Amino acid sequence: MAQPSIATLTSLLADDVTLVNEVIMARMASDVPMIPELASHLIAAGGKRMRPMLTLAGARAATGHIAAADSRALLLAAAVEFIHNATLLHDDVIDESDKRRGRDTANALWGNEASVLVGDFLFARSFELMVETDDIAVLGMLSSASARITEGEVKQMTMAGRPDSPMQDYLDVITGKTAILFAAAAASGAKVMGGSEALIQGLHRYGLSLGMAFQIVDDALDYRSDLASMGKNAGDDFNDGKITMPVILAWQDGDEAERAFWQRTIGMGAIQEGDFEEAVDYLTKHQAIDRALDEAKSYAEQAIAALDVVPEEALREALADAALYTVARTL
Amino acid sequence: MAQPSIATLTSLLADDVTLVNEVIMARMASDVPMIPELASHLIAAGGKRMRPMLTLAGARAATGHIAAADSRALLLAAAVEFIHNATLLHDDVIDESDKRRGRDTANALWGNEASVLVGDFLFARSFELMVETDDIAVLGMLSSASARITEGEVKQMTMAGRPDSPMQDYLDVITGKTAILFAAAAASGAKVMGGSEALIQGLHRYGLSLGMAFQIVDDALDYRSDLASMGKNAGDDFNDGKITMPVILAWQDGDEAERAFWQRTIGMGAIQEGDFEEAVDYLTKHQAIDRALDEAKSYAEQAIAALDVVPEEALREALADAALYTVARTL
Repeated sequence: MAQPSIATLTSLLADDVTLVNEVIMARMASDVPMIPELASHLIAAGGKRMRPMLTLAGARAATGHIAAADSRALLLAAAVEFIHNATLLHDDVIDESDKRRGRDTANALWGNEASVLVGDFLFARSFELMVETDDIAVLGMLSSASARITEGEVKQMTMAGRPDSPMQDYLDVITGKTAILFAAAAASGAKVMGGSEALIQGLHRYGLSLGMAFQIVDDALDYRSDLASMGKNAGDDFNDGKITMPVILAWQDGDEAERAFWQRTIGMGAIQEGDFEEAVDYLTKHQAIDRALDEAKSYAEQAIAALDVVPEEALREALADAALYTVARTL
Repeated sequence: MAQPSIATLTSLLADDVTLVNEVIMARMASDVPMIPELASHLIAAGGKRMRPMLTLAGARAATGHIAAADSRALLLAAAVEFIHNATLLHDDVIDESDKRRGRDTANALWGNEASVLVGDFLFARSFELMVETDDIAVLGMLSSASARITEGEVKQMTMAGRPDSPMQDYLDVITGKTAILFAAAAASGAKVMGGSEALIQGLHRYGLSLGMAFQIVDDALDYRSDLASMGKNAGDDFNDGKITMPVILAWQDGDEAERAFWQRTIGMGAIQEGDFEEAVDYLTKHQAIDRALDEAKSYAEQAIAALDVVPEEALREALADAALYTVARTL
């Protein structure tokens, strides 16, 4: 069997993605030049456009169109990408990041003030785009998703430095900060094109499980220095005291000496030379990374199981391939 | 004649404001406790609820109800207050403020990260509230207003330290950062209750002019150390290099020595003991504060002239009194 790939979905939706990219570039325009300058630095630099592709996939599942989706789907896909990029701009300010996808972050180049405000602009603009779809139900889905994103991020902040956090808290955090937008992106694409309630619900389940798988893998890869993880550096989460699934597993199974190690490092931030390697040793001892990746695979399987509502075989297989790809990054 | 007062409007709308305050407190709730803690620190502390009162006034102008407005108007008024408070949270992060309305700011107490995220939460929640009004036109007005707010703030940031800025740039900034939300608040209140196009347009003009008057006065008072200006300290704008109407006027009429002074202080930020007093002397020499206040009065008159679309005399007079009060703060 061929290696799972995002390319199946990307090529199936290529024409629509091109159109969405045009909407994105056109709609970051403003009379205030700094806004498109800063926004295009982030947005034009790429990323895989995963979330707008989910919206386009939802629209296509509802209509069966091969390409060139209805303008409402294009506007909505652009809106979803704007929401995502607004959160990235604010995340980089909060995390004081200076690199994303291997490039200088907007806050490093333009300052925190500009990043906060342009994030706000993209968020407001996303709602203007949604208003143009003239579908208040999708506004409901995405405004609610946006509130959940911030709840997830605040909860993540309050959990920082607490390796004894319950696993459910971690799952709540990633549901909010990642999975809900995947779910709303896919479901709202079907909704705006008049898809059935069963299709909308199925795509919501697909997006939610896909988002969980995606974030668990991303977090686990932060402890795999042998793998390039989307421009992040291995050890970033450890250094930031961020609590993710492998750490919670290792804490739960750790002895007193190990727990003292996690408290000193992730808990107190008193990190010394060699601590990251020691952390990886403990995670390996408890198979915490592999167990996290197994959990991600289980979410990917749930995502695929939700796809039986999608009528078109080519689309169903492309979405399934995307789910397998999400967890195959680890191989 | 009695001193103009905001109390006429406040007492006319008292029952509705009480109900809006209940919606506000109920809707800042979240499973993540830090969110209502931080949000209520800011929102429950008060402020005059000027913007939600404009929404309630718009709803009342459309319906003639004496009190206890329709729930859609209450939701919308709460949404407007959430948008305003989201921008306050982000402004305090951007300005690194530690005091607002005489109290510690949220960013001083909870940190910048929490203030950015809770601002985002309030903004998302505001759209959830608007979705509940089931009126996509008001979502259009307020999403567009939100984008304009951020454009105004980015433009203000790029103007900082440039006393040679054209007056039109300053007017663009305050239109965006202040007046547009006043306008959208009043107009959307009429819109959501089915008011006529003439009423909606008239209230939009009223809010826009009122917002301009309000901001020009607020900025001018920053150079009047004899007056308490809403918890701000006199000289804050000067120390931050913020460009406002009196400075632009004094620059335009200043000689070379004065321009060198403005460039060194507001331009380069090389501020020394006694500079603020010297700045006030130059402003006084060119009557820059009085001329700014005259400009504000002219906007207040335009606001009052726009009120002929409001059928109820008591409401019309209360709104006129609010406009006069805005500029009478200076007496």
